[in-house]
Amino acid sequence: MNIEVCYTPQAYQLFHNPNSIVVVIDILRATSAITTAFYHGVAKMIPVATVEEAKKYKAEGFMVAAERNGELVEGFDLGNSPFGYMNARVKGKTIAITTTNGTQAISAAKEAKEIIIGSFLNQDTVIEYLKKQKKDVLFVCAGWKNKFNMEDTLFSGAIAHDLIYKYGFDTHCDSTLAAMHLYSIAKHDLYGFLANSSHRNRLAKLDLERDIKYCLTPNQCPVLPIMENGFLVKA
Amino acid sequence: MNIEVCYTPQAYQLFHNPNSIVVVIDILRATSAITTAFYHGVAKMIPVATVEEAKKYKAEGFMVAAERNGELVEGFDLGNSPFGYMNARVKGKTIAITTTNGTQAISAAKEAKEIIIGSFLNQDTVIEYLKKQKKDVLFVCAGWKNKFNMEDTLFSGAIAHDLIYKYGFDTHCDSTLAAMHLYSIAKHDLYGFLANSSHRNRLAKLDLERDIKYCLTPNQCPVLPIMENGFLVKA
Repeated sequence: MNIEVCYTPQAYQLFHNPNSIVVVIDILRATSAITTAFYHGVAKMIPVATVEEAKKYKAEGFMVAAERNGELVEGFDLGNSPFGYMNARVKGKTIAITTTNGTQAISAAKEAKEIIIGSFLNQDTVIEYLKKQKKDVLFVCAGWKNKFNMEDTLFSGAIAHDLIYKYGFDTHCDSTLAAMHLYSIAKHDLYGFLANSSHRNRLAKLDLERDIKYCLTPNQCPVLPIMENGFLVKA
Repeated sequence: MNIEVCYTPQAYQLFHNPNSIVVVIDILRATSAITTAFYHGVAKMIPVATVEEAKKYKAEGFMVAAERNGELVEGFDLGNSPFGYMNARVKGKTIAITTTNGTQAISAAKEAKEIIIGSFLNQDTVIEYLKKQKKDVLFVCAGWKNKFNMEDTLFSGAIAHDLIYKYGFDTHCDSTLAAMHLYSIAKHDLYGFLANSSHRNRLAKLDLERDIKYCLTPNQCPVLPIMENGFLVKA
């Protein structure tokens, strides 16, 4: 039961392991939004990599979410603010979604045997699931345009810490060790720790402090989104 | 005077900045060996990416260093143990060198305006130089086969910390912030902190503890190797 952390979608092929469960992480905000969506009754989500693909789903009558550079793409129904999914109109719906980083990470990991969606919002649910599966785990951080990002790394460190120190998992991977060390510094005040981080500042400029605080508050949405045949569904 | 840290050669193109001074880092052991070599009187070094290229230099009569997976490649004069360069026979020589990660990092950054070689062995010399140049700085960590590695990251964090907090440099890059946080935990006992790191363990199996301790001891070789027209020379 080995753990690895892949900091960017670009690096995925170096980490690909046919036996791993892949946990895709995009804390600000795609995987937080997806977790929230399922908690609020969305039936299925279709992650797509490009805005062009998203447009096709829109033309077919689907509800479609599209975000680029932190903002809703004009002409679509939703962006990737979790608050957009706390709405009765999404209940029971199938929603196609494309985001700057999160859906790219899902796409990069498409050869993985199993993909689940992780965020602070479903932190304990993710741990419970991985603990029971007893398989290798690969965290795939969405990052920002293939650069390392802090909040995704912190989440991987949080989960890796519990799996290793409570549930008998192991690691031989420096990126996992670094993620756990960073989480150990940050855990008592994630919001404060991220004050200087690049993405928090990017979103603060877009007036998204409320989103950031929500996305960093653990266990508000105890559901597990999982990929099945190209769709995200609730496990 | 902006600072960025690129954790692996694979990611270099995402960070390329025509105005940056690139600091190539491969603590265990290529850039430590190169720093040691110049301190002990080597005249020039020719970094080459492949063993095949290294063979050509060998055939032309050059002294040649070649390392793969921590070991000297058979038929060559030197590996990348710094202790191999503490020898009168290298004095005044031009040495071609290829290593598993370090020379790949130099090669990845070949479009950079300026490349210097950093290691704990010339830590203060690197800081002095960068402080005077007053340019953007990009640290390029060699990593291990394009995966993140701890000791290269720690060194980038050490230098970034001084440039930012003492000399007016700035950063907007999460990988720089992470490197500085990790260094802040590790700095009082680098050797102990790296006890679980992947590369320290890889080298320990090859009985290279003496090399590791040497490479983690700051400021033993106050020289600055710098790239000029495809050669490394002493600045």
